[in-house]
Amino acid sequence: MRIALDAMGGDLAPGVTVAGALEAAERGQRVLLVGDEAAIREELAEHQVGLPRGVQIRHASEVVEMDDAPRSALRRKKDSSLRLAFDLVRAGQADGVVTMGNSGAALAMGMFVSGRLDGVLRPAIAALVPQRDDPVVLLDVGANTECRPANLYQFAIMGTALAEAAFGLEEPTVGVLSNGEEEDKGTDLTRLSAALMAQDPRLRFVGYVEPGDLLEGRAHVVVTDGWTGNIALKTAEGVVAHTVGLVREAANSSLLGRAGAALFRPALRRALAHLDHAEYGGGLLLGIDACAVIGHGRSDARAVANALAFADRLAGERLLQRMRQRLEAGLVRTGRGDGDG
Amino acid sequence: MRIALDAMGGDLAPGVTVAGALEAAERGQRVLLVGDEAAIREELAEHQVGLPRGVQIRHASEVVEMDDAPRSALRRKKDSSLRLAFDLVRAGQADGVVTMGNSGAALAMGMFVSGRLDGVLRPAIAALVPQRDDPVVLLDVGANTECRPANLYQFAIMGTALAEAAFGLEEPTVGVLSNGEEEDKGTDLTRLSAALMAQDPRLRFVGYVEPGDLLEGRAHVVVTDGWTGNIALKTAEGVVAHTVGLVREAANSSLLGRAGAALFRPALRRALAHLDHAEYGGGLLLGIDACAVIGHGRSDARAVANALAFADRLAGERLLQRMRQRLEAGLVRTGRGDGDG
Repeated sequence: MRIALDAMGGDLAPGVTVAGALEAAERGQRVLLVGDEAAIREELAEHQVGLPRGVQIRHASEVVEMDDAPRSALRRKKDSSLRLAFDLVRAGQADGVVTMGNSGAALAMGMFVSGRLDGVLRPAIAALVPQRDDPVVLLDVGANTECRPANLYQFAIMGTALAEAAFGLEEPTVGVLSNGEEEDKGTDLTRLSAALMAQDPRLRFVGYVEPGDLLEGRAHVVVTDGWTGNIALKTAEGVVAHTVGLVREAANSSLLGRAGAALFRPALRRALAHLDHAEYGGGLLLGIDACAVIGHGRSDARAVANALAFADRLAGERLLQRMRQRLEAGLVRTGRGDGDG
Repeated sequence: MRIALDAMGGDLAPGVTVAGALEAAERGQRVLLVGDEAAIREELAEHQVGLPRGVQIRHASEVVEMDDAPRSALRRKKDSSLRLAFDLVRAGQADGVVTMGNSGAALAMGMFVSGRLDGVLRPAIAALVPQRDDPVVLLDVGANTECRPANLYQFAIMGTALAEAAFGLEEPTVGVLSNGEEEDKGTDLTRLSAALMAQDPRLRFVGYVEPGDLLEGRAHVVVTDGWTGNIALKTAEGVVAHTVGLVREAANSSLLGRAGAALFRPALRRALAHLDHAEYGGGLLLGIDACAVIGHGRSDARAVANALAFADRLAGERLLQRMRQRLEAGLVRTGRGDGDG
């Protein structure tokens, strides 16, 4: 497998992207560094290395910035590193894309260059929400502010394929995010979506999942509309950051606190490690004809390397083929009039 | 001030409610214990006390259970402790209600017995989300799954009055919960709501607030629809519980961890204290003609006592009068056709 890394995407590019690619190469991965060749070579020089085995550069003259509107990025930056990364997949020169850049632009670029997978009504962004065991696949977390039941149903199918490919789960369970577990909770959208999922014997549907149970392993895949998913994800990230900040403050608050914290720190670090989003390096674009991992804009080199490893694994586990098969067998297809036309 | 406490509401009633009332009475508060007199007297006997000064019993023969549907609680349990608590406020015998019971039923009961404040389109449930300084007032967290801009605008007015009365803030800031701070983020609902708020010089409107900034003091009052607010609140509670659980596990994971944790614990406890929802004892019904605090079903005696103190403070600070004045001066009134008729 060979992954095209948008070397210019993210707040700390190309420093962390080049460093991440070097880390991945050390583990034996093959990476295409896509972006401004001079800037990339300068970063390599900082590391006092040439191009390691398995790493190549593909020059692109433009950069999609974090605040570029997706549409204008698409229209005006035709030689951007983000676009070239998708072009390389389309041309069969790469098996997946990793970017730490503008996720809206990545979605637009992926839709334009790679196109949707056959039958997909709306692509989605899936997040991997860390918990004790394998992370929960939560989608959509931002691609579609408004959704229809057929969209959520397809998210369930795509999320199931992802959980299989990413974590080797044989029959991932699926739930719908709701404000309560009882059937009379939720909205018209959740009720109609749940009804569709319950009808499909190929989905292991477990009903509504409350946000409070998101981290408690109630379901491997949790689907929702892009507005609700984005609010839940950002709330969770904010609360984790806030709580970890409080623990850190407490550790510095007194001499006894500092002494205790010093002894306690290794155990604490191990316990909290799985809350670190850097472990998988980010979320995924699902529903386009490319395997694309989107990381946090502030990712460090380790997160970039992990994202590369994750994209490599998903491509190797044939994520796209799994999705195609599951979508074909699904109950909702475009052209049957129950989609969004 | 005298607060009517639904002694039968909540998972641990009447044990914790009676204990909480005793704690409040010790601080000099006046409480009406509303519920099954025999059960209440039995609990008092457990504490080996009679009725302390300032505490009285009002007998009610029925109990609204946590899983009773609001409508059937209203229709079938006409002598419930929850209902009598609101009746006592209406009759001028109490200045506020506290219940740890069924919040949907409390809302229905409050609407039916106390009625809406003049001009209120939709009452809301406000949560106090703990953060470093005063908690953030987040509403609606569950009364109205679907909302219109005029509803969110009124939530901003009511939330402002609450932040004034509860925390003595002179000019509380107000934001709209959104998936990004930029004006082009959000939904039609958030955009139209924000436009209404921006037009009102009596609101100190600060724009969109991201969920990640909810705990970072971006605004004193954050408004949203009841679906989104419920998801955000439950996600936050779930993540706090999960993270605190991990810290606790780490503290028991090794001898060194245990030793360190023992030294570290007091500082940690202080740091995390403000994340404890028991500090204020719960959320509030806003928009009905009664001051009503709704606590968690699993509240302990301290949470009950804190909820009683909070209701006492709000009644003393004339929360309802403040809301009435602000609603009268607001831009949106019922009957002007821009509400939900």
